[in-house]
Amino acid sequence: MFYAVIMAGGTGTRFWPESRARRPKQLLPMLGDTTMICTTVHRLRGLVPRDRLIVSTTAELAPSIAQELIELPRGAILAEPYKRNTAPCIGLAAHMIVRRDPDAVMGVMPADHVIAPEEAFRKAVRYAADLVEEDPRRLITFGIPPTYPAEGFGYIERGEPVASKVREQRTDAPGTFRVERFREKPDLETAREYLADSRHSWNSGIFVWKAQRILEELEQFEPAMADRLATLAESIDTVQFEGALKKEFAAIEGKSIDYAVMERAEEVLVVEAPFEWDDVGSWRALARLKGADECGNTIDAKHLGLETAGTIVRGGRDHLIVTVGLTDCIVVHTPDATLVAHKDHEESIRHVVDALEERGWVEYL
Amino acid sequence: MFYAVIMAGGTGTRFWPESRARRPKQLLPMLGDTTMICTTVHRLRGLVPRDRLIVSTTAELAPSIAQELIELPRGAILAEPYKRNTAPCIGLAAHMIVRRDPDAVMGVMPADHVIAPEEAFRKAVRYAADLVEEDPRRLITFGIPPTYPAEGFGYIERGEPVASKVREQRTDAPGTFRVERFREKPDLETAREYLADSRHSWNSGIFVWKAQRILEELEQFEPAMADRLATLAESIDTVQFEGALKKEFAAIEGKSIDYAVMERAEEVLVVEAPFEWDDVGSWRALARLKGADECGNTIDAKHLGLETAGTIVRGGRDHLIVTVGLTDCIVVHTPDATLVAHKDHEESIRHVVDALEERGWVEYL
Repeated sequence: MFYAVIMAGGTGTRFWPESRARRPKQLLPMLGDTTMICTTVHRLRGLVPRDRLIVSTTAELAPSIAQELIELPRGAILAEPYKRNTAPCIGLAAHMIVRRDPDAVMGVMPADHVIAPEEAFRKAVRYAADLVEEDPRRLITFGIPPTYPAEGFGYIERGEPVASKVREQRTDAPGTFRVERFREKPDLETAREYLADSRHSWNSGIFVWKAQRILEELEQFEPAMADRLATLAESIDTVQFEGALKKEFAAIEGKSIDYAVMERAEEVLVVEAPFEWDDVGSWRALARLKGADECGNTIDAKHLGLETAGTIVRGGRDHLIVTVGLTDCIVVHTPDATLVAHKDHEESIRHVVDALEERGWVEYL
Repeated sequence: MFYAVIMAGGTGTRFWPESRARRPKQLLPMLGDTTMICTTVHRLRGLVPRDRLIVSTTAELAPSIAQELIELPRGAILAEPYKRNTAPCIGLAAHMIVRRDPDAVMGVMPADHVIAPEEAFRKAVRYAADLVEEDPRRLITFGIPPTYPAEGFGYIERGEPVASKVREQRTDAPGTFRVERFREKPDLETAREYLADSRHSWNSGIFVWKAQRILEELEQFEPAMADRLATLAESIDTVQFEGALKKEFAAIEGKSIDYAVMERAEEVLVVEAPFEWDDVGSWRALARLKGADECGNTIDAKHLGLETAGTIVRGGRDHLIVTVGLTDCIVVHTPDATLVAHKDHEESIRHVVDALEERGWVEYL
């Protein structure tokens, strides 16, 4: 059986002031009318029934997520008491799944990515699941063929094509390769090389594997973490679970699944995603997805622009935003806070939240 | 007797969105806690009693001005039904004054300039009034010794020093010269020359003359305007006045007192102002008056700035404004509208109001 785990614990600090601690990016309709978490859940329709879906998030966000995903069963939302990056969370979800089906395949995906078309995504996930059924040692990651020299993504360098009957049986099977190595976010020059050499994909953070297999990998590479997860797993579906979760997560070291397993494991494959993808990681990324007018402006506000170009303006329906002589800026108005940033300094936006905390201006977090 | 006329009909479009059609700059506390019109009236204390004060403004602004200057007699506020620049308004005020005192000296000054210290201003006006009493043909204008090569002001080129007993009797009399000529707003290079040659002053728009004399000058240089004003003057203090005002002002051609009289008259003198002065003509001018922090920022808002320099930020107490990577910008937040402009395009801010009118977004005017 196939299970899906949606990672919905992100803070979305790059989207301040629209994204706030209690309503981060995944809980906002960044594109269109639907929140990103809802879009992510809807994307799984036909692929996995509601009772085989786990949404992992923080304790703080869990109530809002539950309200947003009112159709999900009560137990579907896993609220982590402490932020411990992706590996512990994926390990715990794997334990929960293995208890119900020791042979289950699980897909792991972030709650706040843009993917289209949905059917291509579902088809690709089914294909990955078949690859895993063919060889249960396999850890599948989706690689996105780069379309521009992005500096903001991790990259995957592909190795040899994978021999697979599953693949041979499908005329439209996407490219499937052994992973040669994972690459950190590159500088622009390196990103250009990656784009040119056709051997690199963006790392989407979408994975498919046997739940049992990822637990074995964690045992091998992260025995301390695996021990704590195993202890915690004993209390799943008992009244002790919440207490154990707090205790073990407090003690577990935070680590990403990439560092913990993917970069060290043997049978890691990359499937070339046959769908459009974006992690919507920044205001510029959002503007790229939304498109721009003839002046290069992306406007989602009541706006008047004089001599304004390359600028992103976001706000409400009633508050008027006027820009004069602005080039390559980001203006975001919300009822209690306004951001004005230059695009070249976009990376600094995530520091705003820290700076607000330092000043004690917590009402704007 | 000395009378004062305060010109308070300005629209303040350069200060949008703080300045609005119904609450322009003179009705705002641009610096400190007091509205500029109040500060202007208070500056006249000891120089002219309330019943010898005329505040000229537009019909639209008259109620707000009256409310702000509640201490003034009812008839002190002259509401013009149509905007006709300064000459018709000054002419009408001169008629009103002459009716009460044919020999009166009148001072004319804008409602929205910054002047300090107040006593130096009053002393200078008294001195100018004495010069006028000495020779009733004189038209006095105050020139401000430039402190930087301003492009935004008109300039006065001085001629020969004026021979005057009034001047000789005072050891601290300010420099007093015949006006050689008036100069339009210069470009930067010319402004630098003016600054260097010590022969040029900024044109403050503050005048002192005999009320009767300015009427004679208008008769000579603008006979059509003078005729209409004379007709209108016949109905002053009668029930016909309001109707006549509408009729004559509708027909009068708008013209500034500089064009109509000052640039053409014979006995025009410039007194070097022995006080600090600024017309607060722009956000940059305001920032210059308020001063800047070590990053060159002038902040009057709840503000957090990362990598922000040379920037003006204005807003309320509760709405947070965050700037990231901004240099030389202007950010002004009000409850219903926000302006973000680059300082280099500051001149375009006054076009915002026109653009809003074109779009029919009149609620933001």
